[in-house]
Amino acid sequence: MSQLNKKTTIKDVAAKAGVSVTTVSQILNHKGARFPAATHKQVRQAVADLGYVANFSARNTRLTVRRRTIGVLVPQIQNPFFANLFRGIQDYLYDQAADTFLVSTDGDNVKAQQYMKQLIHRSVDGFIIASQLDGQDPLLKKLRRLRIPYVLLDQNEGDQAGDQIIVNERQGGQLVAAHLAAVKQGPIILVVPRQQSANIHLRIAAVKAELARRQVEIAAIYQTSALEKSAGALTGRQIMQDFATAPHLTIWAVADEVALGIIKAVRQARKQIPENVKLMGYDDTDYADYLNLTTIHQPVVTIGREAAALLQARLADPVRPRQVIVKPVTLVRRDSTSDD
Amino acid sequence: MSQLNKKTTIKDVAAKAGVSVTTVSQILNHKGARFPAATHKQVRQAVADLGYVANFSARNTRLTVRRRTIGVLVPQIQNPFFANLFRGIQDYLYDQAADTFLVSTDGDNVKAQQYMKQLIHRSVDGFIIASQLDGQDPLLKKLRRLRIPYVLLDQNEGDQAGDQIIVNERQGGQLVAAHLAAVKQGPIILVVPRQQSANIHLRIAAVKAELARRQVEIAAIYQTSALEKSAGALTGRQIMQDFATAPHLTIWAVADEVALGIIKAVRQARKQIPENVKLMGYDDTDYADYLNLTTIHQPVVTIGREAAALLQARLADPVRPRQVIVKPVTLVRRDSTSDD
Repeated sequence: MSQLNKKTTIKDVAAKAGVSVTTVSQILNHKGARFPAATHKQVRQAVADLGYVANFSARNTRLTVRRRTIGVLVPQIQNPFFANLFRGIQDYLYDQAADTFLVSTDGDNVKAQQYMKQLIHRSVDGFIIASQLDGQDPLLKKLRRLRIPYVLLDQNEGDQAGDQIIVNERQGGQLVAAHLAAVKQGPIILVVPRQQSANIHLRIAAVKAELARRQVEIAAIYQTSALEKSAGALTGRQIMQDFATAPHLTIWAVADEVALGIIKAVRQARKQIPENVKLMGYDDTDYADYLNLTTIHQPVVTIGREAAALLQARLADPVRPRQVIVKPVTLVRRDSTSDD
Repeated sequence: MSQLNKKTTIKDVAAKAGVSVTTVSQILNHKGARFPAATHKQVRQAVADLGYVANFSARNTRLTVRRRTIGVLVPQIQNPFFANLFRGIQDYLYDQAADTFLVSTDGDNVKAQQYMKQLIHRSVDGFIIASQLDGQDPLLKKLRRLRIPYVLLDQNEGDQAGDQIIVNERQGGQLVAAHLAAVKQGPIILVVPRQQSANIHLRIAAVKAELARRQVEIAAIYQTSALEKSAGALTGRQIMQDFATAPHLTIWAVADEVALGIIKAVRQARKQIPENVKLMGYDDTDYADYLNLTTIHQPVVTIGREAAALLQARLADPVRPRQVIVKPVTLVRRDSTSDD
């Protein structure tokens, strides 16, 4: 697959694919939307077989081996969840002769659009998108129009075209509720984000439904401004103030990063975890282990690897049926909800 | 600066810069190494003034506003230190009409080379490099040859060409030693990485020199395999085993991520911080605050912003004198070294 391309020209690719040079050029330059998917497949296969590297006009550097380039969009690289997701993606793709460029969109759709435009402009071969996008989003429409393959992560609605990896939020929510019901002491409090992406909305709905089914009462639901430690600390301080007289509390935070902020607020209120406050998070970022936080494990590095594998398979075979993989989650019990 | 470029052509740029179209083309395509720096400057100034966007051959997307693209190399995006550095870089550049692509090199020079090759191939305008590279590194030589500007971060040796931001490691090491001397209980242990980058070598040397000057004895120096939590936990377990009978210890870890691993090992040994073990880190990642860890604050978001500003200034004026900025650090005292 990775031959030297000293003598391989676009004519060789065209001959091997059985199409014209113009067709090859337009497809490789993302201008081939009008050609059927089968033609795209023939051309990409020929490119791979011959190890052809497009000569990007007057570019100074020629790659001698055909490596692909993949754009990865995450909402916030400061969240270790996404840093580890990227690790999984990058490790897999590097070994598969593909280079990854990461952009962090700050959950800002205008930024996401700008970065994606730049990446398309620089002819990346495909995208892995962990930023929340609606299926009707112009970005996705554009990728579909340009026939640039993409894999969506962790988005439970909208897009019916791209391959997807979805985490089983319903199961996760049920595990949270069952554990809260089992360990609860004092009032139960949920901390959820003000703005909820589709997957997080499902997660919270499942927690509520399962608690209701078990006839366990929710004392209060607090909204936090972002899935960040600092936002969690702010909300945590409010909770510790509102429930200052309660000797015991049980708190679930929608994400480990938020739970970290609550740990700080509890400490500042001179209360103990788990003696006074039982606390549970969600994600199982690598910090949860170091902070002894009970949480729900999402296999994030594996998810990254599988997303990368989906994209590779799609690049190799643009016409294969759409793939949707659902990943299960598991409860990880640690001291933050233990009985002593 | 960011005008529409509907009518601006390469001829306009050449006319404004007072050079030929070929010269403009070669400089914009990184083939202009033979032209003097002044010519580069004239051309880039003309590009900026006219808001010209190079037509990357048969590329499908035309950007209507001249935005730059910057490649950012970090050794390990999973380390929150680098995630926050990137945040500083990206926030600044986005507002300055430049888009950032991040690559994480895993401290692997072959990977770094591959990613940089791809980024050059895709015509990025400049680089910010936080991965450790020797000044004689072929990567840097190549950038200099192609006249692609770059800013180096946190590297205290070698390169005499690129703009740099350096953190005052000597001062940091002295602050560590002074604090260890002030709070010490029981044997003093240092945890350092097996492979030391230039800046970390300076940091450790300064700690040792200042402890020696104060006639404070170092009981043991442990080497850890990487600047990661898991490596820190492993080393921490070894320390807790070797010093099982010591009622008190004082430990300094070369980085907060390593200190986090040691916190876990101390907890597993059923010892308390700070009662049994006084622990100090380095970096002041945002987790240090949430873990109550005494550490040395590096102003990492600010460093990111300033690196970005240096690169912008260099792009605007390729011939200005080389800039080297030295950033001071500060001690942040938290409970992990307190007296009760």
